[in-house]
Amino acid sequence: MSPTPQPRAAVIGLGLIGGSIARDLAALGWDVLGDDRSGATLREACAEGVVRAPVPATGDLAADVVVFALPLTELPVAIEAFASRLGAVPLVMDVGSTKASALAAAERAGLAERFVGAHPMAGDHRSGWSASRRWLFDGRHVYLCATPATSEDALRRANHLWRLLGGRPEPIDAGAHDQLVARTSHLPQLVSKTVGLVLADAGIDRDQLGPGGRDVTRLAASDPDLWTAIALDNRAALLDALTEFRRRLNAMADALKRREAPSLRALFLEARRWSDRAG
Amino acid sequence: MSPTPQPRAAVIGLGLIGGSIARDLAALGWDVLGDDRSGATLREACAEGVVRAPVPATGDLAADVVVFALPLTELPVAIEAFASRLGAVPLVMDVGSTKASALAAAERAGLAERFVGAHPMAGDHRSGWSASRRWLFDGRHVYLCATPATSEDALRRANHLWRLLGGRPEPIDAGAHDQLVARTSHLPQLVSKTVGLVLADAGIDRDQLGPGGRDVTRLAASDPDLWTAIALDNRAALLDALTEFRRRLNAMADALKRREAPSLRALFLEARRWSDRAG
Repeated sequence: MSPTPQPRAAVIGLGLIGGSIARDLAALGWDVLGDDRSGATLREACAEGVVRAPVPATGDLAADVVVFALPLTELPVAIEAFASRLGAVPLVMDVGSTKASALAAAERAGLAERFVGAHPMAGDHRSGWSASRRWLFDGRHVYLCATPATSEDALRRANHLWRLLGGRPEPIDAGAHDQLVARTSHLPQLVSKTVGLVLADAGIDRDQLGPGGRDVTRLAASDPDLWTAIALDNRAALLDALTEFRRRLNAMADALKRREAPSLRALFLEARRWSDRAG
Repeated sequence: MSPTPQPRAAVIGLGLIGGSIARDLAALGWDVLGDDRSGATLREACAEGVVRAPVPATGDLAADVVVFALPLTELPVAIEAFASRLGAVPLVMDVGSTKASALAAAERAGLAERFVGAHPMAGDHRSGWSASRRWLFDGRHVYLCATPATSEDALRRANHLWRLLGGRPEPIDAGAHDQLVARTSHLPQLVSKTVGLVLADAGIDRDQLGPGGRDVTRLAASDPDLWTAIALDNRAALLDALTEFRRRLNAMADALKRREAPSLRALFLEARRWSDRAG
């Protein structure tokens, strides 16, 4: 009986998400190849023993999984550039915050059967290799989106991989995913930044806030380029979420303006009931 | 030389703030009298050895400080009820989230010279005696608002007391305070609750959120009655803050709608610069 061959992953992009995947897989004994537009990051990842070697610049890429962990703006070009070299790879994934556009890119590149779009709910307002860490995905929801052509084998592999990383994979339709994250993630981002802008306008610093104000404004620190790309990519769903938000906020402001204590209290109570419901 | 007499505090209301003040002062060797509308809370505070005895129901109250740590709706009535019994008390404080109405109540009760309105920036989405704890105020800003008639002695005592509790007291005009907290505290509350309502409308539970969404919606759990009272008490300033917030959010939504990446990025960058500025 031959020994189980060492599984291999190629991680394209060694930022917060890609770097954390690489760290976890390396710690699990996988052979990890890595790529990053920053030579310094790539050297560091190799020097730390997380990445064994850079992804070769040419030729067929032999790996059990190729993970594209790139900003949304770079993803389609990267998938396109690598597509012809992934002949023997049974699972190709991205890990971006929106899924409809990633799946479309994979389909255009002819990778639909082997492609699973993944979105681990494990963001951080920090980014880059220096922010990456082991167990980032531990206990986190990980949304998995199949193309219409994704094979059972690719889906099973994706599920298995995210379980290995400690995540809780959940299949979801890409369109439903994008509407969901518009509310769970992108709306909170914009709202947090907007509170930050109001405080900036008033000349109030972050250290003048209590714990509640700090929590609400934490996401103001997130990367502006990354979030511009995400917001534009998920524009339609995010505009829907913003409309819903403004409708609810206007109702609150109107109750306050009209001194309607019972209406105001009913809205606050509804929010608390939601909060108590789970989590 | 006689020994320094043991200082005494009377704490009216043993919730999160009052209870935490009582705990800290008792640990510092003060004699703490306590009062609470809940007999069970009062008994518990006595049984734990934090409160030595209940505040007597009648007669002159002899204490170095009397702290009203009550919901905003109960504060004016309580100050009025106690005012005639505070003849020898050199410092009377409240600890509510808005200050103009508390100072007005103190002035109406004839306590203006000895009154200092305090607002420790140490909230929590939990409340009540069970949430109170030692060191709640450690390192926290504590706004101190004087009436036009507050004596130097009362202000010095208030400063000294909050330093003892580990806080960072800062004098501020009551009107300016209320405009400030409308932005640092009350706006974040309403915004957090509103995101909660949008998620409730979409049937999304709190445990489907990533860490960012959880931070932004944490305040949805706050007490509805408490926050209805605060919002109404600080209505004018909060409506100003909401108007500013909606103006900034509309600009963001418009940039997104028109696919103006540079405008969107500029807003996100401005939020990040604010976040980086301090804290």
